[in-house]
Amino acid sequence: MNLERVTVAGGGVLGSQIAYQSAFKGKTVIIYDINDEAIEQVKKRVNALRDQYKHDIQATDEQFDDGLSRLSFTTDLASAVADADLVIEAVPESPSIKHDLYHNLSAMAPERTIFASNSSTFVPSVYMEDTGRPDRFLNMHFANQIWMNNTAEIMGSPKTDPDVFAQIVRFAREIGMVPIELKKEQPGYVLNTLLIPLLNAGGYLWGNDIADPHTIDKTWMVGTGAPMGPFGILDVVGLRTCYNITKDQSGDNPQAQPFLAKVKEMLDEGKLGRESGEGFYHYPNPEFADPGFLKS
Amino acid sequence: MNLERVTVAGGGVLGSQIAYQSAFKGKTVIIYDINDEAIEQVKKRVNALRDQYKHDIQATDEQFDDGLSRLSFTTDLASAVADADLVIEAVPESPSIKHDLYHNLSAMAPERTIFASNSSTFVPSVYMEDTGRPDRFLNMHFANQIWMNNTAEIMGSPKTDPDVFAQIVRFAREIGMVPIELKKEQPGYVLNTLLIPLLNAGGYLWGNDIADPHTIDKTWMVGTGAPMGPFGILDVVGLRTCYNITKDQSGDNPQAQPFLAKVKEMLDEGKLGRESGEGFYHYPNPEFADPGFLKS
Repeated sequence: MNLERVTVAGGGVLGSQIAYQSAFKGKTVIIYDINDEAIEQVKKRVNALRDQYKHDIQATDEQFDDGLSRLSFTTDLASAVADADLVIEAVPESPSIKHDLYHNLSAMAPERTIFASNSSTFVPSVYMEDTGRPDRFLNMHFANQIWMNNTAEIMGSPKTDPDVFAQIVRFAREIGMVPIELKKEQPGYVLNTLLIPLLNAGGYLWGNDIADPHTIDKTWMVGTGAPMGPFGILDVVGLRTCYNITKDQSGDNPQAQPFLAKVKEMLDEGKLGRESGEGFYHYPNPEFADPGFLKS
Repeated sequence: MNLERVTVAGGGVLGSQIAYQSAFKGKTVIIYDINDEAIEQVKKRVNALRDQYKHDIQATDEQFDDGLSRLSFTTDLASAVADADLVIEAVPESPSIKHDLYHNLSAMAPERTIFASNSSTFVPSVYMEDTGRPDRFLNMHFANQIWMNNTAEIMGSPKTDPDVFAQIVRFAREIGMVPIELKKEQPGYVLNTLLIPLLNAGGYLWGNDIADPHTIDKTWMVGTGAPMGPFGILDVVGLRTCYNITKDQSGDNPQAQPFLAKVKEMLDEGKLGRESGEGFYHYPNPEFADPGFLKS
């Protein structure tokens, strides 16, 4: 069975991108959000994608409009999922919101409907029993700017039906994603399981005054051929997010404190990373993108 | 003072590269090794660089010969260092060999001579007292294939004179390196402090059957734009080296055992990485270098 009728629950930054990308690639998509005000914001987010699709992947206005024509919006969850092949959940990372949503979806959606969560922080077994269909539930996790950063990490719970997993892998390909198949539950999936230790090591070197951020990034870029180093990546992630995650994960671990103190200082100075125009680099033309950066 | 007369002690893989690269860039270089047989091997290694300099950095035969004309070989340490501005130590990572060498150098080399160790595993304070000149001693660490992987990580001990540090930074630039300045001693320098946690995370994901090596590398390459993932890097490092280092560092840590068991199996099958033509990929045309690898 092909998954053609898709409902995205939650039209935040990622939800609106997932919905639009699916419509752009030919799926019939409904975005659900909680009220009219929220829907207005979702529409703004979707419309703001036009310039990025045109600039980043050379979409024409006609192609972008074609995608829009397959996208609709509603605040009525029951009607949104009444005929859905697939519901992609992209609501806030709050257990109570997610538990409520899956309870509601469990009653409202047809038995055949597959549910997929875009959660970054929860593995699917946390919510599988709420769905009333643990065999038809799994995680499919996207990266920001999905039209360019086109990975979809796919992770089932121990109860996910392998056929459902395979259908979602196919769906991910159909909407232009590179499917990353996890064979077991793993917090952070593959990408963050690899990335976070690298970022932590960079934070350790800077936090303990062993080397400065530009030197650390230069070493990584020259040494591995990567297009940016850990501090360039932190600017993309955003220093506020980085601070909160590091604080959550490290608790009172003394190793993390010097790094946290330095990031706090930058936040107090309004250096939030790429979004504020300054973090470890200045934007829109960060120093690391200058060819001379790697040569001196 | 410019550092023009350079002696490289130990003409192994890295020693011969450091010596030739310095001569190629205009320095007058003597390579010391322990006996005539060793020197014959060093000469072979140096001559084998010709094809790589021609292929990788488009050096002409004339330019390569010009470098050779500034390079000489000896088994007599005293004469090798009698007029050296700089001695670069690249002998095996054995404490007794290194302690002996620095004791000898301490007596044989002029007071003005700077000593730099290419050691991967020892910070400079381990040997500084042997040198008789802790203020004129530090580490300068190169990567294999230094004509392309042109970082020189420079790390002083607490006793290194800042002027000596600055001279070595200048020297590194003169021989075509990007100097990476460490402000404190750090085992693994910058590059390995960043790299090893990434490789360990990849090993954890594969060792615990969460994802396979090609999927893990694909995720890293698509997600960060890097030219290879952790398993591509492990093939370059070599699986034997990887196995020994992981075993040394992890001891009986149960987290590392599944990974070690799988690497052991590959070693038993003769899959050593790039050097044997097969590791996680097949060489000389590894699967990850195929454009289709990132798209499916």
